[in-house]
Amino acid sequence: MAITLYELVGRDTARPFSPHCWKARMALRHKGLDFSTATAGFTEIPEIEGGVSKIVPILRDGERLVADSFAIAEYLEETYPDRPSLFRGEGGRALSRFVESWSQRTIHPAIARFAVLDIHDGLAEADQLYFRQSREKALGTTLEAFVADRADRVEPLLASLEPLRAIVSKQAFLGGESPLFADYIVFGALQWARIASPFRFLPKGDPVTAWFERCLALHDGEGARVPAAA
Amino acid sequence: MAITLYELVGRDTARPFSPHCWKARMALRHKGLDFSTATAGFTEIPEIEGGVSKIVPILRDGERLVADSFAIAEYLEETYPDRPSLFRGEGGRALSRFVESWSQRTIHPAIARFAVLDIHDGLAEADQLYFRQSREKALGTTLEAFVADRADRVEPLLASLEPLRAIVSKQAFLGGESPLFADYIVFGALQWARIASPFRFLPKGDPVTAWFERCLALHDGEGARVPAAA
Repeated sequence: MAITLYELVGRDTARPFSPHCWKARMALRHKGLDFSTATAGFTEIPEIEGGVSKIVPILRDGERLVADSFAIAEYLEETYPDRPSLFRGEGGRALSRFVESWSQRTIHPAIARFAVLDIHDGLAEADQLYFRQSREKALGTTLEAFVADRADRVEPLLASLEPLRAIVSKQAFLGGESPLFADYIVFGALQWARIASPFRFLPKGDPVTAWFERCLALHDGEGARVPAAA
Repeated sequence: MAITLYELVGRDTARPFSPHCWKARMALRHKGLDFSTATAGFTEIPEIEGGVSKIVPILRDGERLVADSFAIAEYLEETYPDRPSLFRGEGGRALSRFVESWSQRTIHPAIARFAVLDIHDGLAEADQLYFRQSREKALGTTLEAFVADRADRVEPLLASLEPLRAIVSKQAFLGGESPLFADYIVFGALQWARIASPFRFLPKGDPVTAWFERCLALHDGEGARVPAAA
């Protein structure tokens, strides 16, 4: 049955940038599944599949519709158990939630401060209005003010990556010699920054940078096929 | 065969306080294994079992000797596969390393700043000298100066617990409805603080506090049997 992944894009529909959509895309590749992608801007999400979800990614697999990256990974694991495992067992599934929680509370807020204006600038016009209004209301400031001191925020982010760095200094992936969905969770966050913003913050020689590059090369370079923002 | 767990103590040998020894003790209880404990002060560790390890916990299981809390958990999982699982699979084992990495880089340094002087004060005299000299050399300051501003450091620690808090607000344990070794990893850090120092920093009503109390109650209240420092 045909699988379709709905991903978030800006003006350039060849550059999906959502961290959560990247998690789902990597999970599909990890499972070795054929799939096609479809794209939506922020304001088009409510129209996908008759308004099934307010968030992307959304996966259609034959008759099934699944929204949310973690739910998609769980769906794929359950539906395609003979393919390479995303969790390697129940404990891996449970602790992937901790990795997700850590990534979203440590890396995501920092990347938002680096990239939110660049994300805005890359959106289609109709989405820009929605994005600026909703984000500025949530942030309590302008997008421009929010990113103004981003250079000062690099060092704290790099320090907060230490729990990841300590692991990937000693082994290839969080999963060990090969990646798990937990790797894609953190990869998604850094891939979001790489595609949406030209602001570079991962130093050469950092074991996190080397791990991120290993992730970019996975599955025939799936992540690297979309060039970094210039 | 008889199992012995060697644990770190101070003057009061009924109050093992090492975070790593607590991880091993909880892992043994999780597996439902009978074991006895033996104690050592810091300067006695090199004498345990003929100097097999510079660190505790050390586990003797019949003819086998295993040092290091994570290695002990792995040993128990492999040796007693029919008992309740500590990892629930290979993925759980791999990602428990990330939880360990996070705990040791987020919680341990904060607790050291709260408790290092109290730890010193609770040690036997011979250990106090060793502890003060080695720690003050490593810290580059006196134990007294190191803990002087500890009240100011509570809020940053509580903020850094957010990835854990978000999970245990929604479910009983990191493992889900029941604990995994990952829970004991973080529990060990907070139990270390609870036993070694009267300085209290976990607020009532915090989901992390509620989770910690659930951990204290596990396995017939194993953790709660040692009273908090007063």
